[in-house]
Amino acid sequence: MKLLEALNWRYATKQMTGEKLDQADVDLILEAARLAPTSAGLQPYHIISISNQALKEQISPVALNQPQITQSSHLLVFTAWDSIPDERIDERYNSMNTERNLPLDTTMDVVQNLKNLFAGFTEEQQYHHTAKQAHIGFGVAIAAAAELGIDATPMEGFDKEGLDELLGLKEKGLKSVVLLALGRRNPEKDWLLGLKKFRISRDEFVTDIH
Amino acid sequence: MKLLEALNWRYATKQMTGEKLDQADVDLILEAARLAPTSAGLQPYHIISISNQALKEQISPVALNQPQITQSSHLLVFTAWDSIPDERIDERYNSMNTERNLPLDTTMDVVQNLKNLFAGFTEEQQYHHTAKQAHIGFGVAIAAAAELGIDATPMEGFDKEGLDELLGLKEKGLKSVVLLALGRRNPEKDWLLGLKKFRISRDEFVTDIH
Repeated sequence: MKLLEALNWRYATKQMTGEKLDQADVDLILEAARLAPTSAGLQPYHIISISNQALKEQISPVALNQPQITQSSHLLVFTAWDSIPDERIDERYNSMNTERNLPLDTTMDVVQNLKNLFAGFTEEQQYHHTAKQAHIGFGVAIAAAAELGIDATPMEGFDKEGLDELLGLKEKGLKSVVLLALGRRNPEKDWLLGLKKFRISRDEFVTDIH
Repeated sequence: MKLLEALNWRYATKQMTGEKLDQADVDLILEAARLAPTSAGLQPYHIISISNQALKEQISPVALNQPQITQSSHLLVFTAWDSIPDERIDERYNSMNTERNLPLDTTMDVVQNLKNLFAGFTEEQQYHHTAKQAHIGFGVAIAAAAELGIDATPMEGFDKEGLDELLGLKEKGLKSVVLLALGRRNPEKDWLLGLKKFRISRDEFVTDIH
């Protein structure tokens, strides 16, 4: 399977060259994430794709000055809804029904069940739920980048509140979740490239019940 | 890109045929998940791959009797660490260093930083963190299944505590996160297959900052 080869090729690139990627390739990665499934089809997240160098430099200090921030071509900031109010659920299902030429009340029961479900969540739990959905798209985007032979560094080590502030996310009802730096590896400078990829064994990772 | 075609082909299959998949293909999907990255390389999750029909029938009632549970070939139960104690961090980093022929204290600072970080989390927050990592592998597994032309239904609607109990997860320090039913679509019976895939537009999904 080509994807396995690509996943073995990829690694969490620590040093990039600064080379600019074709926007068309970045768009394929974003499209893959857009097509990823989400729980109940809510799609409760949003990606900010930053190729602007000045903005990446502003982000660097809130992201532990990790070099990939500024050495990347595009920095994808995965953000998720900060909460799941009824109106957001209605909006998604209304759009879905409209797109499918169905009456808006087609999904009345599903929508009510979702509202009841999330009413039992704290706002923090609602955010964890939306952030989990963002992680599905994050995984799909990583797979897509690998298939294209584009390096992608997943980054969770950053000051989330600082980044939310910098990008004005609160006003949009969003919170930052995780970063994906896209670019080209710098083989001469990257200390991680020479180290063996470490994963736990299949036996440790999977239990088969036949 | 082949992956985009595959992602457009896939959908959250509601009715499956019960056909058994080749174990070799299921193994490719599991391998893709195993290769998925996780925050700080902790790999804090575990998949239970269930092809045993009797067990799937026992799971059905704790999963809203959704037909894919018993109509699937393999039901993948993604589980994650219920918490992140220091010992689990040490164990992973010791294995990583051993595999890389490095002294165990090579990663001393990273490990201490991780312990300090998670010490500031409640146990619930630790679980949300590990469950998010499981969602990355979940996304990669969905991409892998699609590439292989295997149907995969992501399912979050189930009684998590009931499933934890049934599978004895608590004793293993794990909690269930999400399900992926693998099998073959039943085009004659599946009402969803005829409906247009709905995703928000690229404009709604992405903000570009060039």
